[in-house]
Amino acid sequence: MLKLFFSKGSCAVASRIALEDAGAPYELVKVDLAAGEQRSPDYLKINPKGRVPALVTEQGVLTETPAILVYIAQTFPAARLAPLDDPFEFARLQAFNSYIASTVHINHAHGRRGARWADQHSSFEDMKAKVPETMMASMRMIELDYFEGPWVMGEQYTVADAYLHTISNWLEGDGVDIRDLPIIRDHHERMSERPSVQRALADA
Amino acid sequence: MLKLFFSKGSCAVASRIALEDAGAPYELVKVDLAAGEQRSPDYLKINPKGRVPALVTEQGVLTETPAILVYIAQTFPAARLAPLDDPFEFARLQAFNSYIASTVHINHAHGRRGARWADQHSSFEDMKAKVPETMMASMRMIELDYFEGPWVMGEQYTVADAYLHTISNWLEGDGVDIRDLPIIRDHHERMSERPSVQRALADA
Repeated sequence: MLKLFFSKGSCAVASRIALEDAGAPYELVKVDLAAGEQRSPDYLKINPKGRVPALVTEQGVLTETPAILVYIAQTFPAARLAPLDDPFEFARLQAFNSYIASTVHINHAHGRRGARWADQHSSFEDMKAKVPETMMASMRMIELDYFEGPWVMGEQYTVADAYLHTISNWLEGDGVDIRDLPIIRDHHERMSERPSVQRALADA
Repeated sequence: MLKLFFSKGSCAVASRIALEDAGAPYELVKVDLAAGEQRSPDYLKINPKGRVPALVTEQGVLTETPAILVYIAQTFPAARLAPLDDPFEFARLQAFNSYIASTVHINHAHGRRGARWADQHSSFEDMKAKVPETMMASMRMIELDYFEGPWVMGEQYTVADAYLHTISNWLEGDGVDIRDLPIIRDHHERMSERPSVQRALADA
């Protein structure tokens, strides 16, 4: 059975939503980031990066949300969670996920994880102060240029929706008022009504 | 014909190497980042993100290196540039590319693009000073945990090798001595001998 190493409120939520959407049997293993469990020797054997998510499969361990999301879509094709048969549409999905991972999530991380990229307290404060601006800019870009509607990719719900919802859950903490983002807000509300999303966010 | 919007020394090099590896017919369009061409109204119509690469296909424009690399591998399958028939191996490739995009490239970007995430000159200096440390740490992690050998994914050369080579070209400028990274150095040297790589780096 698949095993997802997970932490509430982290980007691992996206992978859990996708597993629920896929109807995949999986075991959830909670990693307490505040307690530093992600840096324990046992966890580093599973994921040397010391981050969540990690998905343990029968073939080995996978990391990185964009990779895990597509793996779930490919191994549970009946759930139709990605446009697997059209390389261009598939690349559009991948570009969306990559933008979340390498731009939006990175913007967010500067609010709390500045020590990854600098050493001085003044830099952390400076980075933190800019998070509302960078998060708003990247979410507006999604609204303007990368959201087809009613779902990210258009008529078909995909793993990109799980990823976007994970990020939109962070906006309040990042100092962004979701009411200023009508498309993202509407998406957030519709996602919150999905039973798969409710299960993924419920008990962890 | 495919059209690649490209800038020498940027991460767009990876997509160009992959196009050369695929034997794909393509037109190269140079974008002068130093002159700010990536923010011109004409270019923003192509790529609202104001970055390179952008790959114009018959179906539309693609952005984000991990998405473009896999698109090239999927649309030129005879070149065998990705393990397209094994979801787990494909996810391993994707995880590698995602790590480059969202960790290694981001580490590098803090040396020159600090204004993306902060406003104060002191923060930029602080970020810049940390680049040798973060780049070395991420390259060591690749050597230890994510490089099968002789190529990134093992016996089969893939688009991940094009991406890794693109990054390893940045190490000297980032204050990392590639001689301290024997696996990366050996990879860099073998890549430099490939005609596809030489064509991709030659005239631009």
